[in-house]
Amino acid sequence: MATRLTESASYAHLWSTPALVGVFDDQHRLQTWLDILAALAAAQAELGLVPAVAAEQIAEHARVERLDLEFVAAETRHTSHSTLGLIRGLQQVLPEPAREYVYYGATVQDLTDTWSGLVMRDVGRLVRADLARAHARMLRLAAAHRDTVMVGRTHGQPGAPITFGFKAATWADEIGRHIVRLDEGDARWSVGQLAGAVGVLGFFEPDGQELRRRFCARLGLRDPGISWTATRDRVAEFGSVLSMIAGTLARVGNEVYELQRPEIGELSEAPRGSTVGSITMPHKRNPEASEHLDTLARIARAAAGVLVEGMVSGHERDGRAWKAEWMALPEVALTAGTAASLAGDLLDGLVVDEARMRANLDRTGQRWASERVLAELSRRLGKHRAQELMQEALSTADGADLVALLASRGVADPADLAAWVESPAIGTAGAMVDAVVARGTPGTTV
Amino acid sequence: MATRLTESASYAHLWSTPALVGVFDDQHRLQTWLDILAALAAAQAELGLVPAVAAEQIAEHARVERLDLEFVAAETRHTSHSTLGLIRGLQQVLPEPAREYVYYGATVQDLTDTWSGLVMRDVGRLVRADLARAHARMLRLAAAHRDTVMVGRTHGQPGAPITFGFKAATWADEIGRHIVRLDEGDARWSVGQLAGAVGVLGFFEPDGQELRRRFCARLGLRDPGISWTATRDRVAEFGSVLSMIAGTLARVGNEVYELQRPEIGELSEAPRGSTVGSITMPHKRNPEASEHLDTLARIARAAAGVLVEGMVSGHERDGRAWKAEWMALPEVALTAGTAASLAGDLLDGLVVDEARMRANLDRTGQRWASERVLAELSRRLGKHRAQELMQEALSTADGADLVALLASRGVADPADLAAWVESPAIGTAGAMVDAVVARGTPGTTV
Amino acid sequence: MATRLTESASYAHLWSTPALVGVFDDQHRLQTWLDILAALAAAQAELGLVPAVAAEQIAEHARVERLDLEFVAAETRHTSHSTLGLIRGLQQVLPEPAREYVYYGATVQDLTDTWSGLVMRDVGRLVRADLARAHARMLRLAAAHRDTVMVGRTHGQPGAPITFGFKAATWADEIGRHIVRLDEGDARWSVGQLAGAVGVLGFFEPDGQELRRRFCARLGLRDPGISWTATRDRVAEFGSVLSMIAGTLARVGNEVYELQRPEIGELSEAPRGSTVGSITMPHKRNPEASEHLDTLARIARAAAGVLVEGMVSGHERDGRAWKAEWMALPEVALTAGTAASLAGDLLDGLVVDEARMRANLDRTGQRWASERVLAELSRRLGKHRAQELMQEALSTADGADLVALLASRGVADPADLAAWVESPAIGTAGAMVDAVVARGTPGTTV
Amino acid sequence: MATRLTESASYAHLWSTPALVGVFDDQHRLQTWLDILAALAAAQAELGLVPAVAAEQIAEHARVERLDLEFVAAETRHTSHSTLGLIRGLQQVLPEPAREYVYYGATVQDLTDTWSGLVMRDVGRLVRADLARAHARMLRLAAAHRDTVMVGRTHGQPGAPITFGFKAATWADEIGRHIVRLDEGDARWSVGQLAGAVGVLGFFEPDGQELRRRFCARLGLRDPGISWTATRDRVAEFGSVLSMIAGTLARVGNEVYELQRPEIGELSEAPRGSTVGSITMPHKRNPEASEHLDTLARIARAAAGVLVEGMVSGHERDGRAWKAEWMALPEVALTAGTAASLAGDLLDGLVVDEARMRANLDRTGQRWASERVLAELSRRLGKHRAQELMQEALSTADGADLVALLASRGVADPADLAAWVESPAIGTAGAMVDAVVARGTPGTTV
Repeated sequence: MATRLTESASYAHLWSTPALVGVFDDQHRLQTWLDILAALAAAQAELGLVPAVAAEQIAEHARVERLDLEFVAAETRHTSHSTLGLIRGLQQVLPEPAREYVYYGATVQDLTDTWSGLVMRDVGRLVRADLARAHARMLRLAAAHRDTVMVGRTHGQPGAPITFGFKAATWADEIGRHIVRLDEGDARWSVGQLAGAVGVLGFFEPDGQELRRRFCARLGLRDPGISWTATRDRVAEFGSVLSMIAGTLARVGNEVYELQRPEIGELSEAPRGSTVGSITMPHKRNPEASEHLDTLARIARAAAGVLVEGMVSGHERDGRAWKAEWMALPEVALTAGTAASLAGDLLDGLVVDEARMRANLDRTGQRWASERVLAELSRRLGKHRAQELMQEALSTADGADLVALLASRGVADPADLAAWVESPAIGTAGAMVDAVVARGTPGTTV
Repeated sequence: MATRLTESASYAHLWSTPALVGVFDDQHRLQTWLDILAALAAAQAELGLVPAVAAEQIAEHARVERLDLEFVAAETRHTSHSTLGLIRGLQQVLPEPAREYVYYGATVQDLTDTWSGLVMRDVGRLVRADLARAHARMLRLAAAHRDTVMVGRTHGQPGAPITFGFKAATWADEIGRHIVRLDEGDARWSVGQLAGAVGVLGFFEPDGQELRRRFCARLGLRDPGISWTATRDRVAEFGSVLSMIAGTLARVGNEVYELQRPEIGELSEAPRGSTVGSITMPHKRNPEASEHLDTLARIARAAAGVLVEGMVSGHERDGRAWKAEWMALPEVALTAGTAASLAGDLLDGLVVDEARMRANLDRTGQRWASERVLAELSRRLGKHRAQELMQEALSTADGADLVALLASRGVADPADLAAWVESPAIGTAGAMVDAVVARGTPGTTV
Repeated sequence: MATRLTESASYAHLWSTPALVGVFDDQHRLQTWLDILAALAAAQAELGLVPAVAAEQIAEHARVERLDLEFVAAETRHTSHSTLGLIRGLQQVLPEPAREYVYYGATVQDLTDTWSGLVMRDVGRLVRADLARAHARMLRLAAAHRDTVMVGRTHGQPGAPITFGFKAATWADEIGRHIVRLDEGDARWSVGQLAGAVGVLGFFEPDGQELRRRFCARLGLRDPGISWTATRDRVAEFGSVLSMIAGTLARVGNEVYELQRPEIGELSEAPRGSTVGSITMPHKRNPEASEHLDTLARIARAAAGVLVEGMVSGHERDGRAWKAEWMALPEVALTAGTAASLAGDLLDGLVVDEARMRANLDRTGQRWASERVLAELSRRLGKHRAQELMQEALSTADGADLVALLASRGVADPADLAAWVESPAIGTAGAMVDAVVARGTPGTTV
Repeated sequence: MATRLTESASYAHLWSTPALVGVFDDQHRLQTWLDILAALAAAQAELGLVPAVAAEQIAEHARVERLDLEFVAAETRHTSHSTLGLIRGLQQVLPEPAREYVYYGATVQDLTDTWSGLVMRDVGRLVRADLARAHARMLRLAAAHRDTVMVGRTHGQPGAPITFGFKAATWADEIGRHIVRLDEGDARWSVGQLAGAVGVLGFFEPDGQELRRRFCARLGLRDPGISWTATRDRVAEFGSVLSMIAGTLARVGNEVYELQRPEIGELSEAPRGSTVGSITMPHKRNPEASEHLDTLARIARAAAGVLVEGMVSGHERDGRAWKAEWMALPEVALTAGTAASLAGDLLDGLVVDEARMRANLDRTGQRWASERVLAELSRRLGKHRAQELMQEALSTADGADLVALLASRGVADPADLAAWVESPAIGTAGAMVDAVVARGTPGTTV
């Protein structure tokens, strides 16, 4: 049974990746929950809070495949308690004394927030790896097309020339900062939670802090120093960073989507033999990955908004915000994580049509040179006078080439004009590409 | 496998209802898709576009239980086409000639948008029924507690008195308008889609319009008159109305949540024997349903936002917006639908503590009467003079009763003062309750 | 002083219209507030609650131009009360007895919610008028271009043909429903508020309901029947409808934005002599209005979200939600209202290049006919066999015309093939245009 | 004229601070724009691109008070260009040769994005300073109330005890991370923009990069290395961080709002003599600042969402996203900035009622000790057996004290029971407070 299309057999692959499934699907999630309980018991045994044998038993027997999940679910519904079903399910499969020492003194949030910490750590690092791959590919595109001239477009309209390498470098520039954000955020969100009933660990007094330290260490998580049951900035930051990443990837996707229009034809997704674009129009080749990046970003953004809203948490635990996290944290992780993987694939196969880029530039009737000509005329006539003159000249003529148009008005020497439009002024583009390439991928030795 | 907690066996019951599962789960959804294809074939047979026998075969054999869903999913992934896997799966189980006449000339959106139309119709009506139940219960609470005096609270602070019936009547007032919105919207969103490749039904020329008319009629949907492949206001409106409904129900939930604080204790959820509030604090009784209404509203709101954003659709089909709908439309339907059902349960069991309501009023040192006293003094001293005088008097005294305080200042005759605070001025509350109750539930004969 | 760019002298015209300024700017807003107080006093005088002379004095003297606005602002800050500054400012200019009878027994929300009711009524009707203008223009475009063939585009890629009239008719179809939504909503949101301290009108007992009835009638607003101090669905609905309207207008804007690309060149905004597209690229002609429609929709959507969130209001008055309304209601009204006006201008001047539309169709190598050819082949070969055959044929050839490509494979008789691509199959487009045109603008006699 | 209530004389103080006005109001903004133009001219003069005298003239004469702002606005409207009005206004007041050398080769985004960089730098630092003040106050509260016992609340219900110092320490913990985020983000968002027409600085070739370096240095901004005209992560991050900050402050505000309820009475805002809570209920004392923090966070959140959405920018400049930034960046800066200032004031005057905190704990019939008693019984009976036993005992009794209740069932020795409830188990709370206090405010030498 799946009520979300994201979970249906036919469509799940569009909304997750095998690596993300390895984090989130029910089996993995439950085993991770059990591993957290085992880590807790082990840390408690070290401090003499539970018998060592109980901790060992939990480590050995708390296996998801042994649980009667129907029973767990039924008890969860019966008790209306988020984890009492699981506890009772565990008691069925655990020997004594573990049966009484599993989930000892912990609360639901200790389990689920620690899991959230693991999720944020692991998904954050998965996304980082995918971004590093995308970043490397962007740098290669930037370097390879450092001088591949194409139309720059503002407000959807052709303007002065850029290079495709420059465009790719702006992508890399943004992704590079996201990698740094992930690294900075990792130190904040890869934390465990051991808070007890209301956050002060009264159950474990006086061992609470030492227990939390050992518990977190066992899981490879940081010790938060103080409980964060109603302090949700870590989760909100994780969501915000991931939704921003999805935003950048959607920018790349939309760029391909627009430039793959056959009327433009400068970029396109790699063709894939088995893909069927349309069952009513057999000729169709759709920019599917590009398009989907935008879709994923919309969902990621909405989910991230829920997490930021959840920061306004009441008192020591606020189920309103917290249960919304249960929905929204996986959602932003799955959508942004899928986007990061998909973007890498898209970039790996991206087809760049250099000839078309050049041809589109040439189709503008030399209007691509209007900035360069303005610069030259500005030196002779003054900037604003030159602007007005060109503005006026260009507003009255449609088809004529720029040089012919200006020459006929005696604006400048025809030879000068011809020289100015000889080649695009894109020297600084190359220098900026070089600067971005020289930086490399953050945290990577070049 | 389920990557969303909403889909996990233990928690799915919090995010859906049996009736909603009957709309959305994979089996039901797929069967509905097949029913749509059968309706299409039947309408096509009527117009001679496909053989009658093919339509009969499709109606008979297109059963979800006969499909090889693994194959369908694998083909979906292989072709990257949303429904080609399903078509091939159908071809496996259909005899000739149906094999070539299933999904004849239709596009994905014809199938999924028509399904969306059915979803909006059916979920809209489910929610309507749940709201009608909640509305009736609110009216009963309003009538029963027409004169049950309690503290009115503004900015979280006790003010002049209201009645609990008045409070319940404001809930009913709002829910009543939502029912009207559902009825008005139903006429817009319960429509089918038959658009073909780009909306103009070129495949079926010249029968397109008549085919669509018959296709919609067979499914109990309205004929849209013109294709709406990139015209998404219906879906956005549905999402908006449902998220507003969830908002009202969250208002009710939060009211119970706050008034169930033992420091206030005026309302509480029905105790349920098997519920365990906390596994570390055995005494806890949490307002779980109330709290969850707020959680559901947050998710509904975020999903509705995605749908409104999707209205900015490009050209004749925009996969960016449309695929986001695939996520967000079920999400808003499931969360708001669950909320409507849950709210009914909450209201059915709501415990009203009239004694505590009265006691809380009395604890304010007669300050509840400040508006009444101000009204009386206004007639004697002028409104603003009276306000200033009382403001000044009340700012300097903490514990004293209002009458004593004002009497000691010679503001008015002590006997008058005593008369003014004798009973709360809530007469108009009753009249407003009567007005709301008299209206009844929209569309219902009293 | 203006801290928002929307308020600066240079940019305010992009974020409002003269008619909207007539609703919202400080002077008009304050005068409307005073008019509300005058209506209240007049209704109170009718019931003998205040002296008739006081009501007359208020009607005469409560003029914004007489108020010392500096004093009002200073007192507002001093008292931290939203309207006490205004009351004291009024007392300065009112004679006795009005001085004590102005703002008699009312609360801030009575004033501001009633103003909100007037704003929703007036802006709703302004927007309706602008939409009716846009709708009429869309219908004219639909009729005029009923048979103007152009490329239909799905996923950004050229597909089968449509007509421009059909595209315009889908716009009109959507706007038509918005007009109905405005009409339906008007009955809900054009209401007054008279609630008193906590909603039960204790100050006016036993005249509260009658007073409210007369107060609302004087202002041309409906009587809400029960106080709505914490019942905010009306405001949320208004915001939702307006943000949906802005969404549709952004759809139209984006369509023009994309089709104005010179690589496509099918639509363009009317040139305006004085407009300067760029000061560095004198040749630029940007789709400014189109672009701005999308910008406005983003702001409208965000503001509407705040209003829906505000429905979760606590108790009898919740300043958290309510003060957010003070920001968000004007914002959504101003942005959507500006968009409605701007869209009318855009449509009035829209330039349709029929020749370019046809040329773009012809540039596709007859691929526009793929749906029609598929339909024909389906009748001969079976739909899915035909689809596979065409899919395979089209995947291996780039430049060749469709007829040549299929003829060379012996798929069909070349003469048949040539006949199928002779003219676009857009007959149903015209019929749908006719249907939408026949409906006319809601509420308008044709 | 002001169409937004945020700009009206009476209410502007609620939506900004003097320091923020110093950044955003028209006069300051325009002067900053002129300063940016002066910095550009100076850098250009250094490189010989414009005459030194022109740069000096611009520095001297480009003063906002000399501009004819009516003319600027009129020309802006006339040309539909964002800054051509300003340029013409400047030409009126500049002598030759500056008249032609002002705004030399720059585009609107060079001006406005550089301004955005300055805004983000300056507002980021203002907010940092306000947060540091709030943080210090939180640490003082944490230390002073390290052992002030109060009820911990989960799901709105009293649970085990915490200390108020612990609660304040969780606030400080969160704010401390925000300060780090501001510091990390500052390195990314305090950058200038000099991009020219499409980003590659063709106008200034070959001096573009050196010019940008000098231009940024003069303004105290970082050099971005590559143009960011369509790379909006910096702005989105700034918005996200500020909206998260507003979220934390709203959490604090809501905590005070709830705990100031007289039924609870544990915290309250400082009384202010001149404040009037209500004009109909003279006794009202509302938590106005607390409430407003939540309001501000809602607006900040909505505005930040617009900025993240704007990351999906098209090509080299996308006016749709960029103009939305013009609205949303100031909005998030003003609301979050106001919140940071207001929160400091709130904390400075926060009244802590220790006696009431203790009394509320004692009113729970020793139920506050349920976690402690459970811990003790767990050691004797096993954790889950103890939980079930207590769950059952507590579900059947309402008023009785915990000790009496359990003693009567023979659960444990009455003397032991009495000892367990003697004093709250809050030892770890103190240790966590100490840990947070020991960290101090980030970047501050203690």
